[in-house]
Amino acid sequence: MARFKLIIEYDGTPFCGWQRQSERMSVQQALEEAIARFSGETVTTQAAGRTDAGVHALGQVAHFDLGKDWDPFRVREALNYHLRSYPVVVVECQAVGQDFEARFSATARHYEYRILNRRAPAALERNQVWHVPKPLDAARMHMAAQTILGLHDFTTFRSSECQAKSPLRTLDRFEVSGDNEVISIVASARSFLHHQVRSMVGSLKLVGEGKWSPADFRAALDAADRRRCGAMAPASGLYLTGVDY
Amino acid sequence: MARFKLIIEYDGTPFCGWQRQSERMSVQQALEEAIARFSGETVTTQAAGRTDAGVHALGQVAHFDLGKDWDPFRVREALNYHLRSYPVVVVECQAVGQDFEARFSATARHYEYRILNRRAPAALERNQVWHVPKPLDAARMHMAAQTILGLHDFTTFRSSECQAKSPLRTLDRFEVSGDNEVISIVASARSFLHHQVRSMVGSLKLVGEGKWSPADFRAALDAADRRRCGAMAPASGLYLTGVDY
Repeated sequence: MARFKLIIEYDGTPFCGWQRQSERMSVQQALEEAIARFSGETVTTQAAGRTDAGVHALGQVAHFDLGKDWDPFRVREALNYHLRSYPVVVVECQAVGQDFEARFSATARHYEYRILNRRAPAALERNQVWHVPKPLDAARMHMAAQTILGLHDFTTFRSSECQAKSPLRTLDRFEVSGDNEVISIVASARSFLHHQVRSMVGSLKLVGEGKWSPADFRAALDAADRRRCGAMAPASGLYLTGVDY
Repeated sequence: MARFKLIIEYDGTPFCGWQRQSERMSVQQALEEAIARFSGETVTTQAAGRTDAGVHALGQVAHFDLGKDWDPFRVREALNYHLRSYPVVVVECQAVGQDFEARFSATARHYEYRILNRRAPAALERNQVWHVPKPLDAARMHMAAQTILGLHDFTTFRSSECQAKSPLRTLDRFEVSGDNEVISIVASARSFLHHQVRSMVGSLKLVGEGKWSPADFRAALDAADRRRCGAMAPASGLYLTGVDY
């Protein structure tokens, strides 16, 4: 038995998310069908991050097992050939040991959230940014972001449907930078709660608009109350950029 | 009578190019229909660069006249509202004098060509780059590019259907830089011949692959013979990034 680790890029727009669903196409299903087509084997893939509908990936990691040994270079080529009708691409494929688990071996997950902050909407990246027409103060958003680094109860920034047992997470990096019309927000942690990044970004936008102070942002976290969260940022601006092991 | 100057972004993928055609949708038609919808006036727009099918713009410039005076901010807002079903966005709108001509007043046009140079295809920018799987030497391409700066007969790098009276053009800037997997080629001139940038880039690729030396590239120019041009680069990687006046 051979285990393969994949690094995957995708445009999440046409998918119901990473995870298989009966009604709509998922990235997982597209990938598993491509694996079946070249290898003849029916496998289940496991991913580091189960991205939601419309969320993109530049560095999603997944693993799967095949009964036969394959050259990883050939696996990547075959997968990209069979995936060509989807906006999903295998950037790297590597043979790994049976102790490697894409989800459970991960030590850090990195996300980026992109806001197009100008009056005019996006033309070329229409489904790949959050268009916010009113000017945001990126420096103020960054200041607010720094107030919630570290270990906290993130109940405020967690979907009411989140299935994690504990709302405690350690936020290692949360940085906001503005470059011309694009505001980029990067977030890193061992793991995130469901909708955590989009919830934090939606609340940071209130800080950027001047509706909240950085202290209000921290107070919302401390309240540990989902009702204190700002309106969640849309999926279109979110990218899973990488996973560490 | 009021004249308006627009700066326009678009994804060229779904269009037959800038210019109106009877069979397929053009950027010009989409824009003129949007103008008619908010103003009630039927106008003809003129653009600085008549981009081909599939070519994108980050800074196309166009002008048009309306019988009534409008607030340029309202014109932009109305156009973006009526253009919302197309990947076309008016980034700026400005009232200008009757002496301004988007095409004839331009003193420089700037293009960028983007190559995704890695084995795996593009996922998120599928129609917005040229995917070249074999490694290219960007430094060598840059060296070749420098050999054709200035005033030359560009017959080699000109479409056989080009309608310009003279094949003489002055290439002011032609630079190749590689950043990780993306090779960016920028070209500036007062004006370009039809297919000139894509023809030059297609030939530069031969230099990057090692099939041509920088001297071969220059020799192809000097031959002033279209048959000496390398296979033309696809439209998907080309962006009109700006126009100077």
